[in-house]
Amino acid sequence: RSHEHCKLEEGCEKGLEQARQGLAGDETVKDGVTLYLLQSVDQLLLSATKERIDFLPHYDTLVKSGMYEYYASEGQNPLPFALAELIDNSLSATSRNVAIRRIQIKLLFDETQGKPAVAVMDNGRGMTSKQLNNWAVYRLSKFTRQGDFERRKVCAAGLFDTCTATQPLWDPFLCPCAVGCGVMTGEVEHWMIWPVLNSRFGPFCVSPVGTFKSDHSGYVRPVPVPRSLNSDISYFGVGGKQAVFFVGQSARMISKPADSQDVHELMLSKEDFEKKEKNKEAIYSGYIRNRKPSDSVHITNDDERFLHNLILEEKEKDSFTAVVITGVQPEHIQYLKNYFHLWTRQLAHIYHYYIHGPKGNEIHTSKEVGPFNNIDIEISMFEKGKAPKIVNLREIQDDMQTLYINTASDSFEFKAHVEGDGVVEGIIRYHPFLYDKETYPDDPCFPSRLKDDDDDDDCFILEKAARGKRPIFECFWNGRLIPYTSVEDFDWCTPPKKRGLAPIECYNRISGALFTNDKFQVSTNKLTFMDLELKLKDKNTLFTRILNGQEPQALYDEIKTVPIAKLDRTVAEKAVKKYVEDEMARLPD
Amino acid sequence: RSHEHCKLEEGCEKGLEQARQGLAGDETVKDGVTLYLLQSVDQLLLSATKERIDFLPHYDTLVKSGMYEYYASEGQNPLPFALAELIDNSLSATSRNVAIRRIQIKLLFDETQGKPAVAVMDNGRGMTSKQLNNWAVYRLSKFTRQGDFERRKVCAAGLFDTCTATQPLWDPFLCPCAVGCGVMTGEVEHWMIWPVLNSRFGPFCVSPVGTFKSDHSGYVRPVPVPRSLNSDISYFGVGGKQAVFFVGQSARMISKPADSQDVHELMLSKEDFEKKEKNKEAIYSGYIRNRKPSDSVHITNDDERFLHNLILEEKEKDSFTAVVITGVQPEHIQYLKNYFHLWTRQLAHIYHYYIHGPKGNEIHTSKEVGPFNNIDIEISMFEKGKAPKIVNLREIQDDMQTLYINTASDSFEFKAHVEGDGVVEGIIRYHPFLYDKETYPDDPCFPSRLKDDDDDDDCFILEKAARGKRPIFECFWNGRLIPYTSVEDFDWCTPPKKRGLAPIECYNRISGALFTNDKFQVSTNKLTFMDLELKLKDKNTLFTRILNGQEPQALYDEIKTVPIAKLDRTVAEKAVKKYVEDEMARLPD
Ligand SMILES: Nc1ncnc2c1ncn2[C@@H]1O[C@H](COP(=O)(O)OP(=O)(O)OP(=O)(O)O)[C@@H](O)[C@H]1O
Ligand SMILES: Nc1ncnc2c1ncn2[C@@H]1O[C@H](COP(=O)(O)OP(=O)(O)OP(=O)(O)O)[C@@H](O)[C@H]1O
Ligand SMILES: [Mg+2]
Ligand SMILES: [Mg+2]
Repeated sequence: RSHEHCKLEEGCEKGLEQARQGLAGDETVKDGVTLYLLQSVDQLLLSATKERIDFLPHYDTLVKSGMYEYYASEGQNPLPFALAELIDNSLSATSRNVAIRRIQIKLLFDETQGKPAVAVMDNGRGMTSKQLNNWAVYRLSKFTRQGDFERRKVCAAGLFDTCTATQPLWDPFLCPCAVGCGVMTGEVEHWMIWPVLNSRFGPFCVSPVGTFKSDHSGYVRPVPVPRSLNSDISYFGVGGKQAVFFVGQSARMISKPADSQDVHELMLSKEDFEKKEKNKEAIYSGYIRNRKPSDSVHITNDDERFLHNLILEEKEKDSFTAVVITGVQPEHIQYLKNYFHLWTRQLAHIYHYYIHGPKGNEIHTSKEVGPFNNIDIEISMFEKGKAPKIVNLREIQDDMQTLYINTASDSFEFKAHVEGDGVVEGIIRYHPFLYDKETYPDDPCFPSRLKDDDDDDDCFILEKAARGKRPIFECFWNGRLIPYTSVEDFDWCTPPKKRGLAPIECYNRISGALFTNDKFQVSTNKLTFMDLELKLKDKNTLFTRILNGQEPQALYDEIKTVPIAKLDRTVAEKAVKKYVEDEMARLPD
Repeated sequence: RSHEHCKLEEGCEKGLEQARQGLAGDETVKDGVTLYLLQSVDQLLLSATKERIDFLPHYDTLVKSGMYEYYASEGQNPLPFALAELIDNSLSATSRNVAIRRIQIKLLFDETQGKPAVAVMDNGRGMTSKQLNNWAVYRLSKFTRQGDFERRKVCAAGLFDTCTATQPLWDPFLCPCAVGCGVMTGEVEHWMIWPVLNSRFGPFCVSPVGTFKSDHSGYVRPVPVPRSLNSDISYFGVGGKQAVFFVGQSARMISKPADSQDVHELMLSKEDFEKKEKNKEAIYSGYIRNRKPSDSVHITNDDERFLHNLILEEKEKDSFTAVVITGVQPEHIQYLKNYFHLWTRQLAHIYHYYIHGPKGNEIHTSKEVGPFNNIDIEISMFEKGKAPKIVNLREIQDDMQTLYINTASDSFEFKAHVEGDGVVEGIIRYHPFLYDKETYPDDPCFPSRLKDDDDDDDCFILEKAARGKRPIFECFWNGRLIPYTSVEDFDWCTPPKKRGLAPIECYNRISGALFTNDKFQVSTNKLTFMDLELKLKDKNTLFTRILNGQEPQALYDEIKTVPIAKLDRTVAEKAVKKYVEDEMARLPD
């Protein structure tokens, strides 16, 4: 289309726009009447008109994004789950750290240092200014954004950065550590297994440059790892924004990638949005400041004077990200101060397997730093005139998973294969009745009501013993707890209708955990699964028992697993018996 | 600032922008290096720079808004809840209808008429083109938008439009039907009660013009009505968009307000967003078509030929809105076809009290049209070569609330006053064990597992009898069900620790419903309450019994209600006894 034509159209649109704004302004033309702007006096009136409109999302999209998503439907304060979103981001960002992965949550509540603030810092890969810009784009996720990913190195288990292999191998079982590398090409997910070698640090691998002609994005799906601890917990492009605006009124993002000389800084605040709206400025525009590390001359506001120290620390860091939330809601400050023990324990629970590794917090494991306990999540709270409270989540010994693991007398592992690549690992633990007492751990957040009842032993009490009404399974997605979804039970672990071999009370002494990969969907706030129970209870889902870390197929070649749906249920018992007898008869003595 | 200066800045920004795009484009300048654009050769290099950025929300904000919000955490298909969002909008839009409020959901699955479509239509107030534009603005809610509300007439119960009263009255109890008018001024909500008169149609009232100097918006909070059936169910500015993009890939909004000659039409589609992104056009711009009623010449696409008939119907309508969703997900079509009975029953449950009035679907009520059963919600499904399936939700007799109401042998009403104007009405119903059978209705969605068990009577069975493990209370917000939140019980309706007067099994034969006003928060998808249980179990919450529709204060002046928290719990039983005796002694014989 010609430039001329284009200009004409533009002029026309502007006219329409002005007319429309005039409508709203002086109201001489009432709503409900369509105003026809004629180009010339003799122009024919069209029977229908097209009116150009704009419908930019309101800035509440960002500012209130956290408000109604972090609901407290279960009577819990959702604040720990907002903090978890920021930890998720730091876990993703540090996934390729070779040395320790350090994540710090600092509660800066010392008024002599400025107004209350919450800072979440990590020594991860940091963000370029382009990536920092992308951070602020609501709903821009790794699946939709372009060129913001490294397209060369993909490391198994997301743990390491050194990639040396040269030849692709197509057999996943040749991989010495049962991990491979995944590559997503185009629209269809297509898996290729690349050679995996061992190094001092653990498994790593490489996929050759140029494989990614995907128009989708450079996103590379993580390789399967035990308990799906792949650190790939960024999904929707909303978590960080929801979290900061749930906690407070403004966020300063400070970040530096390793190969940059500069630190990039971006501030988003509710106040700023309101000002831009009032002044009719572009709502979704702002500035990134590029500055030298440790340069804090731009911090002139006394409320944020704690930032000078924080920024000074930058000198020692190669790459990092710091999220500094100010305008913290007063009720959050109260909660963070008064329930320090409670919410730190909750975080220890959410990230239990990231902190302790796939086997969890077993008492008798060596405490050497390995690929599975190089994640330090440290919480510190600073108050005026008090010694700072500091805790590393790994030290916490009373989170629910630790309690389950340490009271279990036995456990049983299984795996469920769901149609469409969904894999769920599961564990069931048994907590016996020992020395006159249930050993099933009580949930400090939901203590069983009849805990201290000792004189009553009728039916109503029995059903509340041990696990009580709680469901059996807690559910983890990509290794982290999805706190509001639980699975009550499976057919094979509910009390039978007729009394069976085990006393009926035993069924209430079981706890369990499920670990899914990212083939299951969670809601954007990561509080609930969307489809876990539906998929698990699908007739084509295949459960197998895991013995010594392996599925039966690998242990006993001759065992065949047949999906329940494919069994012929119409066959009479007699026919089965006869078949078995016939087969037995054929066997050599 | 001068025009000159402004131009300079703009030029500078453009330069920077080009530089930034260049960075991404030819990649000769690597990420991580800040490019300094100098205005002149001798300009001093600044130590820090500001880089202008844009961070427009990604269009997935709209297109995927429904995807991860409508999760199926309880094993339910969330599709009925998406349809409910559109019914909510139609309820709001028809709240001031004088005659019947007609809401129609049409499932257009007859392939001879075009591709599958879902249409939701109402005879409500319709939208001006400005309002239609606002519809498309994500997160723009009635609380934030300007001038889109009538600022003159506020009608009690939101039911009527004729307002004649002249003098404000300050006593709500003078209102003959216990409703009044609310006005929100400025930031603080401030309630005024205006005179309420009776007319042939019912209660109505007026607040004088000019009271609304609110900079907040013209929003008027509805007056209190029984069961909070105020039709005020639009809250966040997201529901419609989430719903249409959950159901399908594109939506055509067609609307006409009463005082307009024209019909306004707006189309949003995923495809269109993708095209705009590809062509680097403005993402959040589009066109509204203004056309004559029944003019469908613009429908040239054969896929949508059913629209010609739909549009033809416009002639008979004074004002209306139609939401036409196309690109319907195939799995939704299957579900809508195969589970017609299930999801229509679910909708009848969600809107039970809107359809049947505050007392619900009692068998022996007259079926005259009154202010509480003038809402017709009609579902119709059209398939090729089949007679259309049509059901009015009011005809459905097996939704859970109907079952609860019709099996109850007794009921008990109460009210809870929560700090900060929160009011919760509640009802408890008793479902007896009659003629050898529990009468407690089974939930067809969650049948109790041991339903057909008859030979087993041990402890484990007992706890699953009647209500089983289900919580007592279903919860309604502004009169409509919030399906994923339930309240298990209250202290005063749990089985006592020691055996009391009533047999312990009785406690499991209770069902209940809670009705909150909008002082309680729900999540944006209206699936869960955020704070209901926390607030109800707060120590300052005051429960009172309702007898004959009135609180005890009004019935017996001498009864004092004391918040539980303010009772002196340390007083010995003896002291209480003595006090009572002393008081008794003082009484005249
Ligand atoms: N600590 C961090 N270090 C490096 N990059 C980060 C960090 N936090 C966020 N980012 C970048 O910003 C993006 C946006 O973060 P945000 O949490 O808002 O959404 P997301 O993580 O992509 O998706 P989700 O909604 O699942 O959280 C991330 O994808 C990541 O690229
Ligand atoms: N059927 C309708 N008739 C008239 N106006 C409507 C209709 N549907 C939507 N609207 C207008 O469009 C606006 C946006 O609707 P949408 O459902 O997206 O958000 P909302 O209803 O404001 O809030 P919520 O997120 O609670 O649904 C409504 O507030 C209302 O003004
Ligand atoms: Mg995130
Ligand atoms: Mg709505």
